[in-house]
Amino acid sequence: MNQQQLRVTVWNEGVHEALNDPPGMAEYYPRGIHGALAEALHEQLPGATVRTALLDDPGHGLDEEVLAATDVLLWWGHKAHDRVADEVVDRVQRHVLGGMGLLVLHSGHFSKVFTRLMGTTCSLFWRNNAERELVWTVDPTHPIAEGVPNPIIIPEQETYGEHFDIPAPDELVFISGFSGGEVFRSGATFHRGKGRIFYFSPGDERYPVYHHPEVRRVLGNGVRWAARPGVPREQPRVANAPQDWFA
Amino acid sequence: MNQQQLRVTVWNEGVHEALNDPPGMAEYYPRGIHGALAEALHEQLPGATVRTALLDDPGHGLDEEVLAATDVLLWWGHKAHDRVADEVVDRVQRHVLGGMGLLVLHSGHFSKVFTRLMGTTCSLFWRNNAERELVWTVDPTHPIAEGVPNPIIIPEQETYGEHFDIPAPDELVFISGFSGGEVFRSGATFHRGKGRIFYFSPGDERYPVYHHPEVRRVLGNGVRWAARPGVPREQPRVANAPQDWFA
Amino acid sequence: MNQQQLRVTVWNEGVHEALNDPPGMAEYYPRGIHGALAEALHEQLPGATVRTALLDDPGHGLDEEVLAATDVLLWWGHKAHDRVADEVVDRVQRHVLGGMGLLVLHSGHFSKVFTRLMGTTCSLFWRNNAERELVWTVDPTHPIAEGVPNPIIIPEQETYGEHFDIPAPDELVFISGFSGGEVFRSGATFHRGKGRIFYFSPGDERYPVYHHPEVRRVLGNGVRWAARPGVPREQPRVANAPQDWFA
Amino acid sequence: MNQQQLRVTVWNEGVHEALNDPPGMAEYYPRGIHGALAEALHEQLPGATVRTALLDDPGHGLDEEVLAATDVLLWWGHKAHDRVADEVVDRVQRHVLGGMGLLVLHSGHFSKVFTRLMGTTCSLFWRNNAERELVWTVDPTHPIAEGVPNPIIIPEQETYGEHFDIPAPDELVFISGFSGGEVFRSGATFHRGKGRIFYFSPGDERYPVYHHPEVRRVLGNGVRWAARPGVPREQPRVANAPQDWFA
Repeated sequence: MNQQQLRVTVWNEGVHEALNDPPGMAEYYPRGIHGALAEALHEQLPGATVRTALLDDPGHGLDEEVLAATDVLLWWGHKAHDRVADEVVDRVQRHVLGGMGLLVLHSGHFSKVFTRLMGTTCSLFWRNNAERELVWTVDPTHPIAEGVPNPIIIPEQETYGEHFDIPAPDELVFISGFSGGEVFRSGATFHRGKGRIFYFSPGDERYPVYHHPEVRRVLGNGVRWAARPGVPREQPRVANAPQDWFA
Repeated sequence: MNQQQLRVTVWNEGVHEALNDPPGMAEYYPRGIHGALAEALHEQLPGATVRTALLDDPGHGLDEEVLAATDVLLWWGHKAHDRVADEVVDRVQRHVLGGMGLLVLHSGHFSKVFTRLMGTTCSLFWRNNAERELVWTVDPTHPIAEGVPNPIIIPEQETYGEHFDIPAPDELVFISGFSGGEVFRSGATFHRGKGRIFYFSPGDERYPVYHHPEVRRVLGNGVRWAARPGVPREQPRVANAPQDWFA
Repeated sequence: MNQQQLRVTVWNEGVHEALNDPPGMAEYYPRGIHGALAEALHEQLPGATVRTALLDDPGHGLDEEVLAATDVLLWWGHKAHDRVADEVVDRVQRHVLGGMGLLVLHSGHFSKVFTRLMGTTCSLFWRNNAERELVWTVDPTHPIAEGVPNPIIIPEQETYGEHFDIPAPDELVFISGFSGGEVFRSGATFHRGKGRIFYFSPGDERYPVYHHPEVRRVLGNGVRWAARPGVPREQPRVANAPQDWFA
Repeated sequence: MNQQQLRVTVWNEGVHEALNDPPGMAEYYPRGIHGALAEALHEQLPGATVRTALLDDPGHGLDEEVLAATDVLLWWGHKAHDRVADEVVDRVQRHVLGGMGLLVLHSGHFSKVFTRLMGTTCSLFWRNNAERELVWTVDPTHPIAEGVPNPIIIPEQETYGEHFDIPAPDELVFISGFSGGEVFRSGATFHRGKGRIFYFSPGDERYPVYHHPEVRRVLGNGVRWAARPGVPREQPRVANAPQDWFA
């Protein structure tokens, strides 16, 4: 795979940034969470094209042209999941099933895009006490774990805990443990249609996690794994499919 | 698990029966596909309570009370998938995730209920030439395969073929081969939320497949496997879930 | 499945008991680890026949007759794995592949029986500091998790940690977190041949874990899940198999 | 991954070649099955280093130095599985678990190397009637399926059929159907330790299958997928492992 050709789109709802909530967030994420993610990907994937898109952009910045020119989409959302238009969710789902890679990050577990693709509630337990998260590798054969230390130590993070209501992952790559005692399947892949999906839980608006070098390594590995630049983005064959997919 | 307590609901869209299409269908399915399925389950699960529900019943016969009193729901549909109301799909999904078993049969692969739970198109290849289907067991440890010969021989069936656009099954129980050369993952399980789902492809309005004694054995095993009578039907925890689930 | 007919054999190497190591072990395990396990199963599976077998019994107490009359075998070993005769390992493997259930407990991860059936080293990280173990359910649809609280709290246990070098489990039921920060796939199933295998890590000679009511519940569920009393114990079809299996 | 650096070793027992059995085999495999496989890999992986090793070479041509310098090992055997020395099997297993890729081909399903890594009998049904094999892709997201038509048509092949007694594959890539009616999981991956294993069934001494351009494409994809040139070949951590692994 030629990294020069990788085309990545980072989507962020951008609400925390607009509200400067939590206060001081602008100090560690001056260009927003999407800016930090784009910076991480430029660092990890030299030569890749990285663009950003926001909820308030026309069509949430994810019209047909943008998705058709995207090898991998990253998704970060938290406070405004239900402000995402169903037609955009339909479009993203169609592109993922057609071969676009998708990385769903942290609170994106509750996004319409992820719950639509999983078919479950994707609910989980959470508590935000700045606990220490240890991210352990359980599948050392997986490309996403390549070069990742065991464990990754994240000094302060929101705690996520089981039961995480997802389908059994196609590949379970990471399991996290938190100082409060919870465990969480924090790195999991799903094959859907012709697309590859990677859910990775670290990352929260309260902590500068996306500056963590090893977290950035995982993001770069994840994009490399999910990208299928050689694959024609066919419309999935859906004779007789639920009409709402093709409004 | 006490079979006496098993409560099964067989759902059928009932359109082929209403149109007597194909002509002569009434000869082998005089009480409809739902009638044949109910008969099979009475035979396989002595003492179980089996009710039927149809698309044209009020609320498609699947209101909250019915689902709350259903351990396992069977779903047969073909011509009228998009006439199924989204609110009924929401309700069925919520009950499956809360612990209700679900058997999706044959052309139900394209139902809103199944595609919603899978998150994929669930498309497949088909050809209807009355070919012979051989159903081979690939997981002899699975309760659904108990007492099932290898292979089940179905003299005439509609041909289904790969690629079947589903998530990788949690358990692949049966693979079918057709005289025309196609292969198909014809028996597959999925764990979703607290619910167990079994997709089984044999069965078509053109052939009396639901009278086949070994197909009936699989249906009985499938209901027994999917049923969780002891489990309280909790509403899944879905804080912040997509609004459309909770209209 | 009729519990009356369940026939369980509990195997223990019995070395810690013989050496009274650790000192005082006899206080919480007066009849040995095998005695405590047998007591737990009598409690959980009323009417089941439970026998015990030890390393120093003739043929380790696992001759052809015993295995042929065993629905589920429990395996506990730690200090004497390589004193187990290869011919007994061959015999146990043959019966598991033929349909006998197997529960491998705690340090049994390094037993010849388990490593033979997994094909991997089954190595893991460990530290014995009497840490608190929390056992979290990640598959609430699984029969082994039925009636098990989330989490099970074990006040003092040996710490096991990833990477646990096993094949990806067919079903991952439990993940444990330890107060020291490690996580571990503590409850995992494997389908091999016609047999069902459940690995469950809690239980160590230093702590009275097998008296814990919820651990006992898991053991009972595990035996019920692994048992296939209806299945004829065929010799697996192994034309041209490695000779050492059939000495 | 830089193909220039790929180091591949093709192992063949070489017995059919020595006996010219079947007669005429030398016409389509003049340099033996290993020669045809090496030729295919040179074609598919320009710049890769491909060496061959035979049963009758000293140490079967697989001493520590050779394996340490091998990124991916291909294994073809049929008539002489039990002439393979256990110490060589131990060595190959250790290297696979340490990160060496392994492709097991056709009748290699019964090799000591494969049965050791799987832990099952790996038995299957077979019949040799020059039937037509259709190889269908069931996981279009998998790198091994990239650029492979659906189906691959192999005019004449030995028939393999279920039940194939393997652990459930980590990824099921191909399912074959044969003109006689059997189906077979013909392309399956297994993650073991740090190593990636791909079993691919097409290929028999009676038919020139390894000249088939699409079969060669799969072999090339398989080697590319299984290779981990960047990963240090550590000895797996196996404190207290069964002694026979470390004679």
